[in-house]
Amino acid sequence: MLRVGIYGASGYTGQELMRILARHPGVGIAAVTSRRYKGIAVADVYPAFQGRLDLKFMDAGPEEVAGRADFIFSALPHGTAMEAVPLFIKAGKKVVDLSADYRLRDVSVFEKHYCRHASPELLGKAVYGLPELYRKEIAAAGLVANPGCYPTSVILGLAPALKKGILDPASIIVDSKSGASGAGREPKTGSLFCEVNGGFKAYNVFKHRHTPEMEQELGRISGSEIRISFAPHLLPITRGILSTMYATLRRDMSAADLISLYRAFYRDEKFVRICPEGALPNVSSVRGTNCCDIGFAVDGEQRRVAVCSAIDNLFKGAAGQAIQNMNIMTGLEEDTALDMLALFP
Amino acid sequence: MLRVGIYGASGYTGQELMRILARHPGVGIAAVTSRRYKGIAVADVYPAFQGRLDLKFMDAGPEEVAGRADFIFSALPHGTAMEAVPLFIKAGKKVVDLSADYRLRDVSVFEKHYCRHASPELLGKAVYGLPELYRKEIAAAGLVANPGCYPTSVILGLAPALKKGILDPASIIVDSKSGASGAGREPKTGSLFCEVNGGFKAYNVFKHRHTPEMEQELGRISGSEIRISFAPHLLPITRGILSTMYATLRRDMSAADLISLYRAFYRDEKFVRICPEGALPNVSSVRGTNCCDIGFAVDGEQRRVAVCSAIDNLFKGAAGQAIQNMNIMTGLEEDTALDMLALFP
Amino acid sequence: MLRVGIYGASGYTGQELMRILARHPGVGIAAVTSRRYKGIAVADVYPAFQGRLDLKFMDAGPEEVAGRADFIFSALPHGTAMEAVPLFIKAGKKVVDLSADYRLRDVSVFEKHYCRHASPELLGKAVYGLPELYRKEIAAAGLVANPGCYPTSVILGLAPALKKGILDPASIIVDSKSGASGAGREPKTGSLFCEVNGGFKAYNVFKHRHTPEMEQELGRISGSEIRISFAPHLLPITRGILSTMYATLRRDMSAADLISLYRAFYRDEKFVRICPEGALPNVSSVRGTNCCDIGFAVDGEQRRVAVCSAIDNLFKGAAGQAIQNMNIMTGLEEDTALDMLALFP
Amino acid sequence: MLRVGIYGASGYTGQELMRILARHPGVGIAAVTSRRYKGIAVADVYPAFQGRLDLKFMDAGPEEVAGRADFIFSALPHGTAMEAVPLFIKAGKKVVDLSADYRLRDVSVFEKHYCRHASPELLGKAVYGLPELYRKEIAAAGLVANPGCYPTSVILGLAPALKKGILDPASIIVDSKSGASGAGREPKTGSLFCEVNGGFKAYNVFKHRHTPEMEQELGRISGSEIRISFAPHLLPITRGILSTMYATLRRDMSAADLISLYRAFYRDEKFVRICPEGALPNVSSVRGTNCCDIGFAVDGEQRRVAVCSAIDNLFKGAAGQAIQNMNIMTGLEEDTALDMLALFP
Repeated sequence: MLRVGIYGASGYTGQELMRILARHPGVGIAAVTSRRYKGIAVADVYPAFQGRLDLKFMDAGPEEVAGRADFIFSALPHGTAMEAVPLFIKAGKKVVDLSADYRLRDVSVFEKHYCRHASPELLGKAVYGLPELYRKEIAAAGLVANPGCYPTSVILGLAPALKKGILDPASIIVDSKSGASGAGREPKTGSLFCEVNGGFKAYNVFKHRHTPEMEQELGRISGSEIRISFAPHLLPITRGILSTMYATLRRDMSAADLISLYRAFYRDEKFVRICPEGALPNVSSVRGTNCCDIGFAVDGEQRRVAVCSAIDNLFKGAAGQAIQNMNIMTGLEEDTALDMLALFP
Repeated sequence: MLRVGIYGASGYTGQELMRILARHPGVGIAAVTSRRYKGIAVADVYPAFQGRLDLKFMDAGPEEVAGRADFIFSALPHGTAMEAVPLFIKAGKKVVDLSADYRLRDVSVFEKHYCRHASPELLGKAVYGLPELYRKEIAAAGLVANPGCYPTSVILGLAPALKKGILDPASIIVDSKSGASGAGREPKTGSLFCEVNGGFKAYNVFKHRHTPEMEQELGRISGSEIRISFAPHLLPITRGILSTMYATLRRDMSAADLISLYRAFYRDEKFVRICPEGALPNVSSVRGTNCCDIGFAVDGEQRRVAVCSAIDNLFKGAAGQAIQNMNIMTGLEEDTALDMLALFP
Repeated sequence: MLRVGIYGASGYTGQELMRILARHPGVGIAAVTSRRYKGIAVADVYPAFQGRLDLKFMDAGPEEVAGRADFIFSALPHGTAMEAVPLFIKAGKKVVDLSADYRLRDVSVFEKHYCRHASPELLGKAVYGLPELYRKEIAAAGLVANPGCYPTSVILGLAPALKKGILDPASIIVDSKSGASGAGREPKTGSLFCEVNGGFKAYNVFKHRHTPEMEQELGRISGSEIRISFAPHLLPITRGILSTMYATLRRDMSAADLISLYRAFYRDEKFVRICPEGALPNVSSVRGTNCCDIGFAVDGEQRRVAVCSAIDNLFKGAAGQAIQNMNIMTGLEEDTALDMLALFP
Repeated sequence: MLRVGIYGASGYTGQELMRILARHPGVGIAAVTSRRYKGIAVADVYPAFQGRLDLKFMDAGPEEVAGRADFIFSALPHGTAMEAVPLFIKAGKKVVDLSADYRLRDVSVFEKHYCRHASPELLGKAVYGLPELYRKEIAAAGLVANPGCYPTSVILGLAPALKKGILDPASIIVDSKSGASGAGREPKTGSLFCEVNGGFKAYNVFKHRHTPEMEQELGRISGSEIRISFAPHLLPITRGILSTMYATLRRDMSAADLISLYRAFYRDEKFVRICPEGALPNVSSVRGTNCCDIGFAVDGEQRRVAVCSAIDNLFKGAAGQAIQNMNIMTGLEEDTALDMLALFP
């Protein structure tokens, strides 16, 4: 039984980790931390856990958590995770960090978009935790940087096409739409029910911090530098990201051709599903699952493709993928505790 | 491996049965029927099943389904189920019927509220499928009438108090609120997104067909005739019923007293959770689960209690409870495939 | 042209006052205050005002606002309004106060439920601002206490029946459901989209602070003391309150009898609409309007009535009613700027 | 007082016409038709009209409606409108047709995307009813083809840039998101609350019928042929369209430059609002209004612009614009009955 700790467990990502791990047959939750909820039962903060998880939030430092757990999820915000993660590593623990702190390999890019980095020496050791691309490296890693939610949907959606070189790399436009849980559980005016419900808007267009992460990974896959015009939008739903990705095809291809190419690329992947011809993904079909659904439309006249990908931002976009990484890093079956069907309707 | 059939599987209840059964370790889905979707893959109607359930809807009669399955869920509408269920019984199959057709023991009450009954001889043999009250009878039954969604929330919410005789039986008012999935998947103007979203209303107040079902069961528990003033409302959510039940207490009792009484009554129940003092249930804490959460408030001055109970109408209120009954009827662990945590947020 | 000031204009009630007043032909908005948004254009906080209202929030004291305006709406929270309102009165201005500070006549009741009162001497002078009951007093008043949102729906829903003495006063149970805007625009975890969306719960059952306000007013109408068991619930919608009010009838009456009685009582009222027999109100039919819709169901066997009333909590439950009061207090046509049709769908 | 008729008034567009016209000071509603609701009061179908509009649906032919009204809105679906409109014209009535039947000038394009045209001789006489572009022609027209909802948002969003020739015409991608009311009030499975709520998907990507309408109008403005890659999405909100339009700039321009250009282009327009720099439109800021809000983001490195435009699809995208056209065609002030502020929150 693997003893896991969740460092910074009070937000939506933390509770999603607890929600999934509570039913993981190979894992015991040894410690969950929260300064705000210190000493309070998880079930008092999240009543859904009543009778299902008998655990209290503790306010413990990294060393104490490392003493209790064999494996650690850090669910702190960026800029804070980088203070704690080195201590977990030093204590010899395996870590999946869910912040942005170890996703970018180039410290100058990180510092341009986020803040000064406190442990840049770990950047070269961290593995980018997208199992569909880096399964082997993840299996051998001590520190995995769990991908951002938008990047997960975009990289999975574009990787096969960029790998095969069928897209004009200067033509990529990504129009993403995310549910409100992506903004976290901090009380902010913009996240209030009355502000979000019935509304829809774009925000941070062409300047969202997830862009360099996408560009880094898509660049590696394509073997050349990639620039993306990325436009995120806020959806009045709780869970889900749908990314609609536009690019010019270098040669004539039909939707059927793309489906074949993607099905071959993701042949052995349990969590990536390619929609049949004529169908496009809906976030409601992946709600509460670790799946990424991908579909295509082609504008033959303009030789342009639209790739649509859908994930649950809290699941495949955060906690589910983190647990997928943990399963790989510890030699468990990759889909353990992750094989649920979407909650629909 | 138990081979199960779902007769009338295309609606929300049918798909919820498939969704849960697809992950049930002791069960294989042998047949799912739908006239409307004959020959179409389940995953083409409900894309969430893509890659998870490789099955087509078939248009088969009861005999054919009985030939393929050992255990049958009938998910037809009331008035139609009564034509098929006798054939399943005749073929020696165990059946859980999710319609209203076998819930009322008195055929005249049934015919007053529904329609002429085609197989009244089965009414005396059918067991009312609320495991928390009738576990033994269900274990021995060939035909279980799965309770209505409203009645499940109301009976679980009032049973302990009525059993103990602490309520004035003439004082019971039930104000229930249900999500839109309770109206099914038939295209009706009143069920359209634009009609439901942002709205809220009562409907069928004091004349809803689930009332006699509640009165029958609560009367049995209390040992005397019970009349309920039942007022259902339509909530702009997909899943969930919250029932707020008001009654006059026969003697002074505090919320803490009620909590003790209910905790004792439901001591061995995995799916009924009594909220701690000061807390009241939220439908979002039971979403996607087989749980019923119950909480209390007492108006000491008026010696009146409010009991709040929350369920997921498609799960504990329909498909989940049906599978709980199947587990009991076939000797499986009662919570097999039913032990998930609520999808929150 | 009446110069009006809004003291504490940054919340949802303040913006609703601005939204309605911006189109009021007899009014000019002379000052809107907000400490938080000092110097910021209203349209920068609420983009819907862009090109429609050219005004900045100012951080001004009561005296300064009194110097700029002839008529003042105080939209401060309870406990704070009581500091400012006496200064407006002293300056000879007419005031509608939208807080709870002047609604309760008995200072001890106020102090039991809220806080110590800083200007109790005004309690006897303030008029309770429900025009359907106190139109004459409002016309002559200098200070009007605008009713709470829940009390507006409940008092309008029960007044005719209590006036006529047809209800057992000990039997009244009020089950109210309110949209999330009732909780205001302060960022609180419980008001986040992800917490409210898809959820439904009761809160503060039998102990909500609006209860004494209802009891005071319904007691005055009925001529005897009234105690109410009041259970509020939080709806996942932005605007709207639906109150379902249960009581025992003292004599047999049909829904048609009640409709006649209520239609007679509200004969000259433009903003109260009695639903035809068989129909019940929906909050979506009053969204964005000053209307209160009322409908009935009768449980003849139990001699119990359910009265349903629907209002828009920000409009008839707050800003719209405040402007209705202003129109009356200043001799304008009562429905000026208030005659819109509901935004449906 | 202008007597207006609404032919085919029972859907959401028809009810929105009634909702706005009921408060139009220069108009009397003389006839509203519906086969389905023949003889039923409008307020019985749409309770929001209770006490506000005393009118029954009639089942009358075009001649009868023409006999009662001076001005006619045809709100029939495409393919049906073309049968009735010629009769209104023959009777000498002015008409705004809200279907697609007279929007396309080239009958072969129409017939490719819709159906055989029954009155192609009127195509040359109909004026495309976008007042911001064709005010003079509309003023002189007998038949105005009211624009589609998507085209309204897209044409207003791209017209200034294409007029000035600053965009590469081969680079235009339009990612639009529409609320569910765009699908109308016909009961369809895909429009049910439970199917739409919590979901999000693209549909008809690169093959939506509104595309040729956009291409026709944008081609006229730019003076050259325009091809658009158009990808519509379904939003889980009732009202609102947000279009995010991407194009390559022919020369370096900042967001501020675009704002200046658009503000100049729409200088005299009351219903088009250009967001200040850094701000982007939200559909909730135009809900229930005739406004179109437009904002910009520029990706300097890629020399790419994103233009966001927001409208209420039932208002500026249908009924409101139709009434704006009527006001122009009959010499009334253009914003009569159209000057409301958005219903927010």
